[in-house]
Amino acid sequence: MSREPSEKRAEVRVHVTRGWYKNEEPDSLKTPHEPGVKARATPKLSSSQCDSTVTVFEQEHFQGKCQEFTSECCNIQQCGFDNIRSIRVQSGAWVGYEHHDFQGQQFILERGEYPRWDSYCGNLSYHVERFLSFRPIYCADHQNSRIMIFECENSLGHSAKLCEDYPSLQAMGWGGTEVGSMHVQCGAFVCYEFPGYKGRQYIMECERHNGAYQHWRNWGSHSQTPQIQSIRRIQQ
Amino acid sequence: MSREPSEKRAEVRVHVTRGWYKNEEPDSLKTPHEPGVKARATPKLSSSQCDSTVTVFEQEHFQGKCQEFTSECCNIQQCGFDNIRSIRVQSGAWVGYEHHDFQGQQFILERGEYPRWDSYCGNLSYHVERFLSFRPIYCADHQNSRIMIFECENSLGHSAKLCEDYPSLQAMGWGGTEVGSMHVQCGAFVCYEFPGYKGRQYIMECERHNGAYQHWRNWGSHSQTPQIQSIRRIQQ
Repeated sequence: MSREPSEKRAEVRVHVTRGWYKNEEPDSLKTPHEPGVKARATPKLSSSQCDSTVTVFEQEHFQGKCQEFTSECCNIQQCGFDNIRSIRVQSGAWVGYEHHDFQGQQFILERGEYPRWDSYCGNLSYHVERFLSFRPIYCADHQNSRIMIFECENSLGHSAKLCEDYPSLQAMGWGGTEVGSMHVQCGAFVCYEFPGYKGRQYIMECERHNGAYQHWRNWGSHSQTPQIQSIRRIQQ
Repeated sequence: MSREPSEKRAEVRVHVTRGWYKNEEPDSLKTPHEPGVKARATPKLSSSQCDSTVTVFEQEHFQGKCQEFTSECCNIQQCGFDNIRSIRVQSGAWVGYEHHDFQGQQFILERGEYPRWDSYCGNLSYHVERFLSFRPIYCADHQNSRIMIFECENSLGHSAKLCEDYPSLQAMGWGGTEVGSMHVQCGAFVCYEFPGYKGRQYIMECERHNGAYQHWRNWGSHSQTPQIQSIRRIQQ
């Protein structure tokens, strides 16, 4: 990006990349919650309908061998890579995994640049520098995303329906640091161990397991506790 | 939290903690964007009007010496602590700092539990385990939060107005990985180096510096680059 001053204050360089997003106001990024936009809500999207492109690099800072993908890769070592050490997401939302065949720690990857392992890894107690498989995430448009969380496993106990981003479940009224089970009714969410979208990440999708995650051991092959303190929607 | 099954599926254990939040639907956490809630929007809040309470512990996992605070602390060592190693935020939003007198790396702290340094630290390339000062953050209610971002320093170049949470600025239409300057018009935001709310954190408040952050060197004493790839509102 050029650092030179410009007089073009009112001009916005906007690439329209999402169904619900319309650049009608020259000086703003319009939000999905404005009534005018809500009324034009697009049908549910899935990654198969959207452009999803990612470029992975064998070395940090986008160096070394690289390859572009538009669909899942179950083992990057079969493509001649030793490991993935930096990522550039051009479009779509992706999930990366520590091990091949979508096993181990999960990392949400949205559009942008990830120059080192610590720019995407959430769990630092357990230092992960392996990244061997990845796939696009099946999302809904933002207004329709919906997840139920339950106090106990098997959808029992106190519950709450979430349709927004929640950097602190406790601040929103949830009575503890744990979630027993979840049911994604529409879209996809990322759940985090700590408030403020920190710690272990769990990707929860309506289009996998029928959206039902009845026990914390089903949240991923790396799940070790039912602790969840923040949850947000995944955007395509 | 009890792990025992319960029949009380429809009951929600909700503690009303925010001005805009009303528990009128027994099975849901209502969102701030529903028209009914919007119409009842409360006046602008600041941390001085809200309850802000944090308990800090000298050891990890809420062990060792501890002390509760309801206002800022410019040097925890003056309270007889060697360092802070775990935090429990009971209410409000806080910012923690690596050094005394609010210097060094910044950490956003929202309601919940932070048992170790890596549950709040965002920048892992530069391993921070010091936490010596903290203060409450001055926020607005969620609907009113507003920040302008500019391509170049001194509010020049392309610009965009943000009123929502943006896990990827590029996915929302911003044309690069950098932001030259910012102006918080209402509320408080946390800006992150990488997408998905990862990397270095910068707390930007309307009520400090008149909301104007004209050069990336003003974002904090730890600022080293203009790279910003995700931005979200801070909730009280």
